Amino acid sequence: MPLTERIETAIANALSLAQGGQAPSRLAAAIEYATLPGGARIRPTILFSVAAACGDDKPDLANAAAAALELMHCASLVHDDLPCFDDADIRRGKASVHRAFSEPLAVLTGDSLIILAFETLARTAEIDETRAARMILSLTRRTGMPNGICAGQGWESEPHIDLGAYHRSKTAALFVAATELGAISAGHDPEPWYDLGALIGEAFQVADDLRDALMDTSVLGKPAGQDDLHGRPNAVAQLGVKGAFERLSDILAGAIASIPSCPGEAALAEIVRLKAQSIMPKVPARNRA
Amino acid sequence: MPLTERIETAIANALSLAQGGQAPSRLAAAIEYATLPGGARIRPTILFSVAAACGDDKPDLANAAAAALELMHCASLVHDDLPCFDDADIRRGKASVHRAFSEPLAVLTGDSLIILAFETLARTAEIDETRAARMILSLTRRTGMPNGICAGQGWESEPHIDLGAYHRSKTAALFVAATELGAISAGHDPEPWYDLGALIGEAFQVADDLRDALMDTSVLGKPAGQDDLHGRPNAVAQLGVKGAFERLSDILAGAIASIPSCPGEAALAEIVRLKAQSIMPKVPARNRA
Repeated sequence: MPLTERIETAIANALSLAQGGQAPSRLAAAIEYATLPGGARIRPTILFSVAAACGDDKPDLANAAAAALELMHCASLVHDDLPCFDDADIRRGKASVHRAFSEPLAVLTGDSLIILAFETLARTAEIDETRAARMILSLTRRTGMPNGICAGQGWESEPHIDLGAYHRSKTAALFVAATELGAISAGHDPEPWYDLGALIGEAFQVADDLRDALMDTSVLGKPAGQDDLHGRPNAVAQLGVKGAFERLSDILAGAIASIPSCPGEAALAEIVRLKAQSIMPKVPARNRA
Repeated sequence: MPLTERIETAIANALSLAQGGQAPSRLAAAIEYATLPGGARIRPTILFSVAAACGDDKPDLANAAAAALELMHCASLVHDDLPCFDDADIRRGKASVHRAFSEPLAVLTGDSLIILAFETLARTAEIDETRAARMILSLTRRTGMPNGICAGQGWESEPHIDLGAYHRSKTAALFVAATELGAISAGHDPEPWYDLGALIGEAFQVADDLRDALMDTSVLGKPAGQDDLHGRPNAVAQLGVKGAFERLSDILAGAIASIPSCPGEAALAEIVRLKAQSIMPKVPARNRA
């Protein structure tokens, strides 16, 4: 099965758990709207790549983990778009959930997706209780307090931001979850996979900062210039455009170097190399000065 | 250890997982504010009572379950109080979380508490993997879509409300979680315990409707008359005050009759009887007409 199809099938299977004869129909529709069609599905792609590198001996565990991780990512987007945070009208080229449905339904969509992520993982206990529990624990650590994406978003409400903690939790945490869950799903220890996730996350953060600073809303599919507007810390403000591009290359080289020794090591390095090219913002060289 | 102390210790232990050197301090404070000091802790009380009736052979499982359930209840209160839902200024006699902190921190507090509930349960896999997984699955079903408290809140955004589904998911679901988790934590099947949870939940709903209709804000510790104000379905509007009191007595009798045969059956019946007296709204008899 091609990777894209594997990801979408896993997500569709997870979403079906939240539907049902008695589900309130508008919330059910909002949950689908928030997850389908998706973005680049980059976190599940990384998760499956790590699972494959580790042998992927119980693929249904990786399937559930990939779906849970993407649902959690979608939940964070829905809540981050709310009027009290980014107040974003568009997301992935269409109206944000609170604009298309309502603010109450957007709050509930995020809540429901968080819970659905854990339900999806909990059901894998039928296949492997030990791995299921470890996957759930990893996902809670990378999403909640004190170090997950909730903490990352929480830093934006602090009078003084710890920049390191902010970036590690706001963006890197879900990439760490991707590499950890990929490893656990295939029966490997998650610890050696931490650095790869953290570095990929850091690369995405810098790439995102560059796009936010250099591109316009029509290309991004979401409002541009948000970091500047909200006074958020940003690699471009810190290092300049040229410096941010250099930093991005360094981080990606470090990510490839961090891949633990495993059967699929070379193939995974190649995937990270390809992904690195695809996330490099496509801007004219004259704008990189 | 007295029950109240057991409950508060379990909640404090769970909360400590969300704290830590790098936690953003305002979100950490908001999470504590939302959970301490608590309300009546009625759901953990029921959970422990059922666990005791089933033998409570691994008390740390019941402790984690009670904490997770109460955190989830607190999360639902924080989100329900948001301006886009009830827009409540006070809760448990003090400012609601979004009024005391901010709306972004209230959204994140709810999200963090949901995740913390699952982390608390996932950590019990060290003691018993099978029960841990079953407890997580039960909690997801009673909180998410299509039948949990998210669904219940979602019904308020529907043009036509399925009243049965609304009440089962909005209020009864967390009481079902209380009886199910109590049974699972002690190694018993949850199914025979469904009715007790559902009936206690229904009783609380009717009692809450009566209080909302009959009492004033200073006694309630939260705004009164909210159901009328928001046009929400309500047992008093449906049956009148006298009819609602009669219905409440019938439901509580049914709850006691539903208790499955178990070592602690008689003791549990007595606890439900006492709780029933305590939830009966204290209004002058002349107002019951």
